[in-house]
Amino acid sequence: MSKGQKLLKRAKKIIPGGNQLLSKRSEIFLPGQWPSYYKKAKGSKVWDLDNKIYNDFAGMGVTTCILGYADKDVNNAVKKAINNSSMNTLNSYEEVELAEKLIDLHPWAEQVRFARTGGEACAIAIRLARAATGKNVVLFCGYHGWHDWYLSANLKKNSLDNQLLPGLEPKGVPKTLKRTAYPFNVNDTNSFKKAVQMFKGKIAAIIMEPVRSDPPNMQFIRNVRATAKKIGSVFIFDEITSGFRETIGGYHLKLKVNPDVAILSKAMSNGFPSSAIIGKKSVMDQAQNTFVSSCMWTERIGFVAALATMKKMKKKNVVKDLISHGKIIKRGWLKASKLAKLDIKVAGIDPIPQFSFNYNNNDEIATYFIQEMKNSGFLANTRLGTTYAYNKKIISRYLESCEEIFEKISRFIKSEKSLPLNGPIRHNTFKRLI
Amino acid sequence: MSKGQKLLKRAKKIIPGGNQLLSKRSEIFLPGQWPSYYKKAKGSKVWDLDNKIYNDFAGMGVTTCILGYADKDVNNAVKKAINNSSMNTLNSYEEVELAEKLIDLHPWAEQVRFARTGGEACAIAIRLARAATGKNVVLFCGYHGWHDWYLSANLKKNSLDNQLLPGLEPKGVPKTLKRTAYPFNVNDTNSFKKAVQMFKGKIAAIIMEPVRSDPPNMQFIRNVRATAKKIGSVFIFDEITSGFRETIGGYHLKLKVNPDVAILSKAMSNGFPSSAIIGKKSVMDQAQNTFVSSCMWTERIGFVAALATMKKMKKKNVVKDLISHGKIIKRGWLKASKLAKLDIKVAGIDPIPQFSFNYNNNDEIATYFIQEMKNSGFLANTRLGTTYAYNKKIISRYLESCEEIFEKISRFIKSEKSLPLNGPIRHNTFKRLI
Repeated sequence: MSKGQKLLKRAKKIIPGGNQLLSKRSEIFLPGQWPSYYKKAKGSKVWDLDNKIYNDFAGMGVTTCILGYADKDVNNAVKKAINNSSMNTLNSYEEVELAEKLIDLHPWAEQVRFARTGGEACAIAIRLARAATGKNVVLFCGYHGWHDWYLSANLKKNSLDNQLLPGLEPKGVPKTLKRTAYPFNVNDTNSFKKAVQMFKGKIAAIIMEPVRSDPPNMQFIRNVRATAKKIGSVFIFDEITSGFRETIGGYHLKLKVNPDVAILSKAMSNGFPSSAIIGKKSVMDQAQNTFVSSCMWTERIGFVAALATMKKMKKKNVVKDLISHGKIIKRGWLKASKLAKLDIKVAGIDPIPQFSFNYNNNDEIATYFIQEMKNSGFLANTRLGTTYAYNKKIISRYLESCEEIFEKISRFIKSEKSLPLNGPIRHNTFKRLI
Repeated sequence: MSKGQKLLKRAKKIIPGGNQLLSKRSEIFLPGQWPSYYKKAKGSKVWDLDNKIYNDFAGMGVTTCILGYADKDVNNAVKKAINNSSMNTLNSYEEVELAEKLIDLHPWAEQVRFARTGGEACAIAIRLARAATGKNVVLFCGYHGWHDWYLSANLKKNSLDNQLLPGLEPKGVPKTLKRTAYPFNVNDTNSFKKAVQMFKGKIAAIIMEPVRSDPPNMQFIRNVRATAKKIGSVFIFDEITSGFRETIGGYHLKLKVNPDVAILSKAMSNGFPSSAIIGKKSVMDQAQNTFVSSCMWTERIGFVAALATMKKMKKKNVVKDLISHGKIIKRGWLKASKLAKLDIKVAGIDPIPQFSFNYNNNDEIATYFIQEMKNSGFLANTRLGTTYAYNKKIISRYLESCEEIFEKISRFIKSEKSLPLNGPIRHNTFKRLI
């Protein structure tokens, strides 16, 4: 048994769920076989506890590390901040610089607040929207974190069947929050209209991601935006995943659709914990009327890392590489599937490409893919986030391995043999609305 | 105008409230005159944007930096983690080591989860308690953050008059949460009994700090603990401020009263953002039944900083110094007040000592005190957190300045002249229950 799997056994006894994030659970990749823990990482290379080296094509830290692991420019800025103390009784001047920078990048936004995690930032945005409108209900599509405001949607069971978090009970969320959050389906004008009609006069906020797996449907997005304005609701773009991948800032800059509030995190600071809520003054200024305050939001690292990440993104035109790497990978998957006569579907924006196997046993196939890619020296998944640290050589090697393994999968499918898995089939993560 | 005050003017336009934390607002120290921002800090020394140097007797980063600013041992561990990448697709092995360490220190606890901020950690504890009991109501005393579960107590206005957050409206908190959180007063058995009676059969959790300004009343604490057990509620100690100051771990270890759940943060990692929820398996394991998950909780710095902080605390017997520094400071304040014939009240645990002026214009006097201490080279407040970085010489210098300024204050009071303030009187922060 690998050192990683041994440590995971210890972890599961004392950390419910084994870790702090569903998307980093070993079981959603490769149960019993995943390296689970890393010792060090550099660029796109990861060393596990047994000193085995992998190249990361499994998300680069849940899509955070767009510049690569341990990027020297961001790290040097952060280490300098640490040498000069990252905590103090006084405030970090960098928070003002970062706020100004974010407003420069998003001219529609007037004010900024910072937090540490994406979930917190969404909860703050919802609080401010409710305070600004005096209303309670939140219409949403997609995933927006673990907080009560969001999970409360699951209190009405049948409303979320086939949509969101199947199997996850919203235990511990006060039942009095029932009917305070309600989902609509992405690119589905009817489901949106129905939700708006159902909660007429009560809607504080409408929150969605500008893009997830499917290409953005501009008509749909413009309609949601216009409706929010018409009914006096706060329109929020959750850009935690989509931001800083096709533009320096929110993906909505590309769509030319401005929300009232946007939430940024993840790639903004190349993996250092930080998040930002940017928005119009009429909403943001509610932070003076309702209590939103936390000691750890003041710490310096997040601000410094975000400033350094944006600086490097601009200097090196990182967005261009993130997109072109993704395009090459998508084309490579399609080519490999054609060569192997495998039926796959490719989706996602270029810097966060994904594919799925179109078979009844697609989880089994995906598990075998991840297993064999691991044996070829790759951390792999059916979804990834590109990074500036990739180069053509490593992408070629990755795609060669994909071709070989797609070929193997095809042979097993043709021969109607079950795939030789060395462990259980991976769990399904919760299904997203988008 | 100082560079700090100039920057604060820019900040206030684009950051509602000017920063991310009420307790770091310049206005609660010295409106118009506070340095506001720091450039660097080392030990207990702080450099402001004009390169003026102060010694910090104003909390050392809201009581986080028990080892001092930029402590070389903790910083070296953190910088090593950053060099090896602090984010990854795989998990940080240090989270398991830290979980095991916290259980070693708190043998009553069986499982651990981590978050990034204190407010989040409290919200997680409440979610888990509600999930474990199937009940909704939270009885609390003291301050536990900005989240909906807590602020909802303010939806019933008159219940919080003279107690908590005066003047802060819970705008944006759904009104349906009314009567889901209810306060009792510390060391007041009647108010506690009344609250328990009022919500009979509905109480999910009882949360309090083991100690704040007043010495712990053991009879009261034991009664709350026993009642929680009797009525089947989860008993939670919020140790965000009290932890890691008189023991390595929670203050409750000293009281020998075990909760079902404890929340640790702040001093645990010497100012690097991290928080932990530790508790009995029956409560903690609910994290498998209810969705509590966040990307930024997985990042490595918090775990590494906490392990390094605890290691140094043990090696250098830091607790002994934190307490003895606090005792000397308390004695010094009393001596200074006697010499000056000033009426003050000293309170707080030794490592977080505080004093108040017993006069009608105590905010005016406190503002003058902070103003004059600043001119003597100290960041000061009427409450502070001691640090291992203090030494006898700097404490002596601080107390000499206190003596001089107490003397001045006394002369102004005797002469019935108003105190010569160079700016407005400081704002009051929200009043705490404890």
